[in-house]
Amino acid sequence: MKTLPKLLAGLGLIAITAPWGAFSSDDINQKVAEQLAQKALSSPLGYDIVESLTVEVGPRLAGSVQDKVAVDWAIAKLQSLGFDRVYKEPVTVPVWHRGIAKASIVSPFPQPMVLTALGGSVATPPEGLNAAIVRFDNLKDLQKAEAGILEGKIAFIDAKTERHRDGNGYGQTASGRSSGAIAAAEKGAVGIIIRSIGTDHDRMAHTGMMRYKEGVTAIPAAAISNPDADLINAMLKRDREVVISLELGSERRGETTSYNVIAEVKGSTKADEIVLIGAHLDSWDEGTGAIDDGAGVAIVTAAAKHILDLQQKPARTIRVVLYAAEELGLLGGKTYAKAHEAELEKHYIAAESDFGAGPIYQIDWRVADAAHMPLVSAMKVAGTLGVAAGNNKASGGPDVSMLPALGVPVASLRQDGTDYFDYHHTPNDTLDKINPEALAQNVAVYAQFAWMVANSDVELRPLPPKE
Amino acid sequence: MKTLPKLLAGLGLIAITAPWGAFSSDDINQKVAEQLAQKALSSPLGYDIVESLTVEVGPRLAGSVQDKVAVDWAIAKLQSLGFDRVYKEPVTVPVWHRGIAKASIVSPFPQPMVLTALGGSVATPPEGLNAAIVRFDNLKDLQKAEAGILEGKIAFIDAKTERHRDGNGYGQTASGRSSGAIAAAEKGAVGIIIRSIGTDHDRMAHTGMMRYKEGVTAIPAAAISNPDADLINAMLKRDREVVISLELGSERRGETTSYNVIAEVKGSTKADEIVLIGAHLDSWDEGTGAIDDGAGVAIVTAAAKHILDLQQKPARTIRVVLYAAEELGLLGGKTYAKAHEAELEKHYIAAESDFGAGPIYQIDWRVADAAHMPLVSAMKVAGTLGVAAGNNKASGGPDVSMLPALGVPVASLRQDGTDYFDYHHTPNDTLDKINPEALAQNVAVYAQFAWMVANSDVELRPLPPKE
Repeated sequence: MKTLPKLLAGLGLIAITAPWGAFSSDDINQKVAEQLAQKALSSPLGYDIVESLTVEVGPRLAGSVQDKVAVDWAIAKLQSLGFDRVYKEPVTVPVWHRGIAKASIVSPFPQPMVLTALGGSVATPPEGLNAAIVRFDNLKDLQKAEAGILEGKIAFIDAKTERHRDGNGYGQTASGRSSGAIAAAEKGAVGIIIRSIGTDHDRMAHTGMMRYKEGVTAIPAAAISNPDADLINAMLKRDREVVISLELGSERRGETTSYNVIAEVKGSTKADEIVLIGAHLDSWDEGTGAIDDGAGVAIVTAAAKHILDLQQKPARTIRVVLYAAEELGLLGGKTYAKAHEAELEKHYIAAESDFGAGPIYQIDWRVADAAHMPLVSAMKVAGTLGVAAGNNKASGGPDVSMLPALGVPVASLRQDGTDYFDYHHTPNDTLDKINPEALAQNVAVYAQFAWMVANSDVELRPLPPKE
Repeated sequence: MKTLPKLLAGLGLIAITAPWGAFSSDDINQKVAEQLAQKALSSPLGYDIVESLTVEVGPRLAGSVQDKVAVDWAIAKLQSLGFDRVYKEPVTVPVWHRGIAKASIVSPFPQPMVLTALGGSVATPPEGLNAAIVRFDNLKDLQKAEAGILEGKIAFIDAKTERHRDGNGYGQTASGRSSGAIAAAEKGAVGIIIRSIGTDHDRMAHTGMMRYKEGVTAIPAAAISNPDADLINAMLKRDREVVISLELGSERRGETTSYNVIAEVKGSTKADEIVLIGAHLDSWDEGTGAIDDGAGVAIVTAAAKHILDLQQKPARTIRVVLYAAEELGLLGGKTYAKAHEAELEKHYIAAESDFGAGPIYQIDWRVADAAHMPLVSAMKVAGTLGVAAGNNKASGGPDVSMLPALGVPVASLRQDGTDYFDYHHTPNDTLDKINPEALAQNVAVYAQFAWMVANSDVELRPLPPKE
């Protein structure tokens, strides 16, 4: 983001002095979009929002007491910003309590390990587990292993997550976290540990959601830090049998109600049509949820607020949705899609910000083929912010990922996630990891995006069939 | 250390082909020093030693069970390397047990904190402490504060440690850790927390030794991570009263015996004169003691081994001392100085490697003024390794720092510590933080240093008075 001050200066050079009447409506929208960027880049609003959320609420695991605090915080924050309508909608969420997590290498060389329970894991027996581990390069190798090979053992998935700007390394290893316990239990394992799904080399473990399957024993599941995974490998080089002890006190405690929190900037001529920009309000419980997803909350809220503050109204309604329980399986997103089923045809387009606070470098779409180029053309305005045209294969972000199948167009405002998986789902997800300038660029691009699509005359449907 | 391969190639160009007889003894020493560097830069020995120590022993808090394992490891390792003499000498050390460490912000915004007990701290009452904090910029401000200002409160020293190549930021803040509990208790505090003495922004706290004073109440002392210190500051901006809870289960459990482990390369013509190169064997208990001070153990051991493997013997004896309990107050160093009191006049020079594995960029000395330039001249051989001439004000390293007052010359082989305090005294002190090439450069420079001084004809005494 070293280029932002330059961009800001560049925008200053093209500030609007001519009267509105001298422009076509497209021209006017572009000029307003430029104004929005100027405002967003010079405003502390986005940073103030994520600072407020991380300091005044902090960790807010869906279903926890702090999750309720976060919902109240969000309602109050959105109301104080003066949105046209602020409301919440119930979402049923599981209650999971992390409890203690302890592990150590018992032999050949006794050493403590740093680990974290995976979200949703069951506990070990109170006395803990004590078993040899069987190492696999990845989930696939575990799934291919012969039946019974893990009888009484603890599986160890040792897949390293690669660093990429678009975060695709995560896509390649996260399945080991989500599905590893099922595959391991099917082969007789009493527990599973995975190398943290993270690109860092901090001695800090990365949590994240995991699943069980009916009919397959639910076994305890945890992630160890990358240096601990290295340590196990060094021991396996010396001795084929590495025995570890594992103690998890995690507990599933039924269900409770959380909320999607929603705010709107009411549209003028097409008020019943919705441009949805979302983020998720919940976080994991070990950091303060700054990059995941306090940043997203700040980005979409500040973007909408800058539009709210314009003299002009957008044609369509801009709806900010702060989803509940994304981390526990997109529960807020799924509940929203169901609750708003009848209204989905009025959703012009949807996008979620949920990839930290790195600068946006590209916008991808999932719209009618004929609509793609006109949208690319409209969003050329973001070029001065460093944003390039993208493809027409967007998913839109986790909580809106189910919408294209229901006919709703989506966009992905792609953020630079080079460092995202260094901190993701760890205690290290704290405010200091957010670059205020990069965050402001995100706000600027989201404001431009929301403004341009809210006023667009392009027909975005029907979506092309999924490839 | 991107230039090392180049250096290696450079050294290759000046490989020795002429017969020894063609050179003066100084010339020969220089050529041998060049050979030693070539060997060290191409040998995995240093890295293998620190890998072995961190994997097969790991954390080794002085006085713990693992400390005894480390002593056995060191004896076995030094014997296996074939040193002329390997022995150990007893050092009395306190036994301190870390126990649990928990803290959270109670108000105005409840949040958990990441902390670690400071080494030597007493426990809190079993029910923990619950008190408002009083923030100070640094130890000095705490010491200047009016009497009684901390009555029933918890002191918070919030000094940030600056990043410098030579690590001098640590020198500016570490006194808050070592002496803060005394100053706080004198003003009525029931406990003290400090911002971690670290240059990182990881949510990981830095431990380290602290002291009490007879006649002043011993209060529990802990360090919080840098992001947690930021969090407290953000709350203090909103509300003057920040209440925290603090629970430490630390325990002092009397004393036990640890050992300085010593190995020698026997000298030829001046075998009773000693060149001491040291490092400390103990570590803190949360990392695996890779940079502090597994690296030092590896550097001095490998350097001496490369000299041992030469066809020529050094004139003086090279003594590798792996000190006990440096972390608990230079106990191994102090015990050595006392035990070897009668022999100290035979110590030609001493140096300790205890600053990680960053490349050596300069050699400082503390020798007779007339000896300084001749030594600088002798060590010009290390110029191709990137080592510059330094001053004549060296301390020599923690465990030899008491020797100049006893008349013994010392040298400081200054390492680049830019990143050292990111990891120092945290769980993050693990093998992956060591760059094998930088470690090999250290071995090369130590080997050259030990060789050159072991064969030097320069009189290093008497030391100039301390400025």
